[in-house]
Amino acid sequence: MAMMPEQRRSSTPQIRIALDAMGGDNGPSVVLAGAARVAAKRPDVTFLLFGDSALVEPLLRSHAALAKVATVHHSDVAIKMDDKPSQALRTGRRVSSMWMAVEAVKRGDADVAVSAGNTGALMAMSKVCLRTMPQIDRPAIAALWPTLRGRSIVLDVGATIGADAQHLVDMAIMGAAMASIVLGVPTPSLGLLNVGIEEIKGLEEVKAAGRLLRDAALPHLDYRGFVEGDDLGRGTVDVVVTEGFTGNIALKTAEGTAKQIAQYLRDAMGASLLSKLGYVLARKAFDAMREKMDPRRVNGGVFLGLDGLVIKSHGGTDGLGFAGAIEMGYEMAHHDLLSKIRESLTLAQEIRTPGVSPAAESS
Amino acid sequence: MAMMPEQRRSSTPQIRIALDAMGGDNGPSVVLAGAARVAAKRPDVTFLLFGDSALVEPLLRSHAALAKVATVHHSDVAIKMDDKPSQALRTGRRVSSMWMAVEAVKRGDADVAVSAGNTGALMAMSKVCLRTMPQIDRPAIAALWPTLRGRSIVLDVGATIGADAQHLVDMAIMGAAMASIVLGVPTPSLGLLNVGIEEIKGLEEVKAAGRLLRDAALPHLDYRGFVEGDDLGRGTVDVVVTEGFTGNIALKTAEGTAKQIAQYLRDAMGASLLSKLGYVLARKAFDAMREKMDPRRVNGGVFLGLDGLVIKSHGGTDGLGFAGAIEMGYEMAHHDLLSKIRESLTLAQEIRTPGVSPAAESS
Repeated sequence: MAMMPEQRRSSTPQIRIALDAMGGDNGPSVVLAGAARVAAKRPDVTFLLFGDSALVEPLLRSHAALAKVATVHHSDVAIKMDDKPSQALRTGRRVSSMWMAVEAVKRGDADVAVSAGNTGALMAMSKVCLRTMPQIDRPAIAALWPTLRGRSIVLDVGATIGADAQHLVDMAIMGAAMASIVLGVPTPSLGLLNVGIEEIKGLEEVKAAGRLLRDAALPHLDYRGFVEGDDLGRGTVDVVVTEGFTGNIALKTAEGTAKQIAQYLRDAMGASLLSKLGYVLARKAFDAMREKMDPRRVNGGVFLGLDGLVIKSHGGTDGLGFAGAIEMGYEMAHHDLLSKIRESLTLAQEIRTPGVSPAAESS
Repeated sequence: MAMMPEQRRSSTPQIRIALDAMGGDNGPSVVLAGAARVAAKRPDVTFLLFGDSALVEPLLRSHAALAKVATVHHSDVAIKMDDKPSQALRTGRRVSSMWMAVEAVKRGDADVAVSAGNTGALMAMSKVCLRTMPQIDRPAIAALWPTLRGRSIVLDVGATIGADAQHLVDMAIMGAAMASIVLGVPTPSLGLLNVGIEEIKGLEEVKAAGRLLRDAALPHLDYRGFVEGDDLGRGTVDVVVTEGFTGNIALKTAEGTAKQIAQYLRDAMGASLLSKLGYVLARKAFDAMREKMDPRRVNGGVFLGLDGLVIKSHGGTDGLGFAGAIEMGYEMAHHDLLSKIRESLTLAQEIRTPGVSPAAESS
């Protein structure tokens, strides 16, 4: 059933991207629209599409350029957006489009898997199929956060609840590795999310992680201390680390606030003839601003700590947004995020073993 | 030294408000400007001003209407914005303007105390001086949250870190009592802040609190289940309950996001001649929107669970903002928040004692 790509451009190394074509609120139509956008832009990408071939193949025929670089791999089972992770594993292990996309990474057939399916199921399958890296106990989800300075990386936005000091330090190392790729800075600045109220001064775990990071003085990470909730939008640091409950609530609170203000703005601009005229005149400025606030520009949660690359797209996104999640996967694979993380973890290990530092060894 | 009010209007019951005149980034000038605004509007308010009389009295002379309803009570010590709570208690107990304002409530000389001083010190002094209500282990700070539906109440925004199920239920009861006053609804809707990700489904404490609230079916509280971060701006429920670490980060994240978007908007409107012209035409609409987003409109964190009313104003606010915090204190005192909370707590106690329900008793 698989349609083979008609040609491959062998001049540059190919990035092979596995897509869960059935994931998300809108399924294959959005997934293929997103893939078509990326295919049109990037000659070094091939796609493996996992899903119901009776749905995927007809759609693929309307994306001629994508069809040339994509193979379809039939799957009978689609994980539902409200399936519980345990349920998803029971019904979808080995046979669902989600599992098969992740398994393509495990087998080495793909460099990264992207799914807009439900987060819990995708994380559960990724953990079972790919396993965590040997040094990592619990994976995390890292999100891009638009800021006044540009973009930051925030993790964990909801993989697990609670984190001890070691877990926070692991996240710092992984988040900094990701930031060095996404933001193109060799030594990203990093803060631990905390509360600024003197009396309580934050969780013990956060304080302990702060001490560890300060003492370790890791080479690829510029630890700047605690940051507060309002530092997120300000872009005070390149990477903000927190445990998954708080991170998820912070992310959704920011999304909710942005929507709320956008609604205020719409109401205000429609309030009178003068304001409507003003809106028409300032249209280009509004469009530029809307683009800055567009959540599709920062779509794509990166699963960190697994022995393989998996990207989670927003479930309700459109083709443009899904293309953003694919682009994130492309970037992570192209710059070999996994090797960068492994390197940083090893380096951190050596630094934290008393008496043995890389400096001492190399001198 | 105290200047006695020249006249009291005895037709309505007076609300006596104790102000820490030295609190906040700008001290007496902002505190007195705020009090003057309230005095001009409310004939049923008198003020007790605690602070350095050498600073307060000259300022008071420039607020003639306020001077008529205010007494000045000298204090030598002002708590600094960066004093640690323990330090503040050591140096400021009994003698600081902050302590004296809270103590005025304890003594029954004032109905409520308002301070823009540092949160940790104010909470520590309030706990030591006023004590918690007998049923309450840990106090909470409740904030007003502007939403698309109007306003909600969110607690705890930073009094304590972590909360067990009982503490969350206590906060629900206190928050609902406050909402019935502020929002004027007899049975406020209420949600517990949680993460929506299926795999993890939130903290055990939050789930346990949800079960308690559902089973109790309290008469003055409409429990609606879990809400997520984006429900805050949406105004899905009247009251949102969470522990102080997450609540503080959610609040500051929302404030940061609002500032970020306001900056985007300023940049966009200044980007071209056309957009500048558009801005001028839509000026009134922008002003209306700015007012909606104005943090001064929702200034005033209410300390809940103490045997006395204390309001915390933002430290960096101006006279208009401080007036908002005083108004919050006025409203809470005028509608006797403390009695409402005590009533609700007693009612909840009875309902939770098996076999004894108010319905059974009254029938």
